[in-house]
Amino acid sequence: MAADLASTPAAASILRSATPAAWVEDAVAHWPELLVDHANCEKKAASTALALMFAYPEDEALALGLSRLAREELRHYEQVVRAMRALGVPFARQRPGRYAQELRLLLATCEPARKLDLLLSGALIEARSAERFVLLAPRLPAPLDALYAGLAVSEARHFELYVAFARACAPEGWQRRLAQLAAREAQLATAPDELLRFHSGPLRRVEAS
Amino acid sequence: MAADLASTPAAASILRSATPAAWVEDAVAHWPELLVDHANCEKKAASTALALMFAYPEDEALALGLSRLAREELRHYEQVVRAMRALGVPFARQRPGRYAQELRLLLATCEPARKLDLLLSGALIEARSAERFVLLAPRLPAPLDALYAGLAVSEARHFELYVAFARACAPEGWQRRLAQLAAREAQLATAPDELLRFHSGPLRRVEAS
Repeated sequence: MAADLASTPAAASILRSATPAAWVEDAVAHWPELLVDHANCEKKAASTALALMFAYPEDEALALGLSRLAREELRHYEQVVRAMRALGVPFARQRPGRYAQELRLLLATCEPARKLDLLLSGALIEARSAERFVLLAPRLPAPLDALYAGLAVSEARHFELYVAFARACAPEGWQRRLAQLAAREAQLATAPDELLRFHSGPLRRVEAS
Repeated sequence: MAADLASTPAAASILRSATPAAWVEDAVAHWPELLVDHANCEKKAASTALALMFAYPEDEALALGLSRLAREELRHYEQVVRAMRALGVPFARQRPGRYAQELRLLLATCEPARKLDLLLSGALIEARSAERFVLLAPRLPAPLDALYAGLAVSEARHFELYVAFARACAPEGWQRRLAQLAAREAQLATAPDELLRFHSGPLRRVEAS
């Protein structure tokens, strides 16, 4: 694994488009709403890792790596909930955004293609998270500034872990498939969106008439 | 929470029947098979806690408590997988036992009764786990002896957490409902069983003809 990680591309390099400046401005203007979604994202990240552990229980290295990753996501979840409490942001149920739903539509339904797709989509989601934490950290009030700077480092490690497992899963084909999934991910993260979420595009602007 | 925990009954006191000596002998005779099931149980315990977090996201105290519990179950999972590796026990897919399946059939399907039932069944499963770790620790080879002695303490804490949340959920009715679920749990953990599992009854003996 160590050798794999050493030659893993940096998080930003697998993303096909950078987050638009408009999304950052939307996020800064609506940070309490984003924070509620962020807590949910950390919980979903743990749940996704557990689902992979149940789907491929015979893959011991994957199971151990994802168990540690899930523990880290749960710790982040607790940190975000405590930050919500400190900042007086109440919990609210939110409609799910399009990002994960639309990305999921692309995943192969048969093995062994499905395992590769699950690992690559995990890598893309973590890479996008890491990119956005870096963009948001200097723009948010304490304690979110320090929290997000720390999370950027963790999520970049998670991205590397998913990429290393994807490479082990399909040494020949992982990069070609990554390019396909990354193209769609970039559209979803940059095109105007109806709902502002941690992985959404910027809010759709109403045209001046 | 501290006051609740202080007056929580000991794990053994909510179990309506002690584990039969025959189960302990079966478990000692087939410990590698049990260890594979045990790894799966730790993973399922984390998954159950996460499912509760998703079902009741507005209950912040529950979410934080269960997130920590899930992290601990995942750490136990990793410890069991490493013990399997140290002892040369290979992973194997196993048919699920009757215990969790049958217990689940009793759970209310409508709220608020369902939340109480999920918490109480969590408490019973953790209490049974704690009881069996105590019984097995002195009978198993290293490193399982020390591992199981440590797990007995953790699972007893988890049992107390579930009971405290059940009590907060239904201060009047939790004990009456616990008695109903505990009666069925005791049958499932003690009656002769087709499959030996961590929460099964002892193996059904073939009658001498």
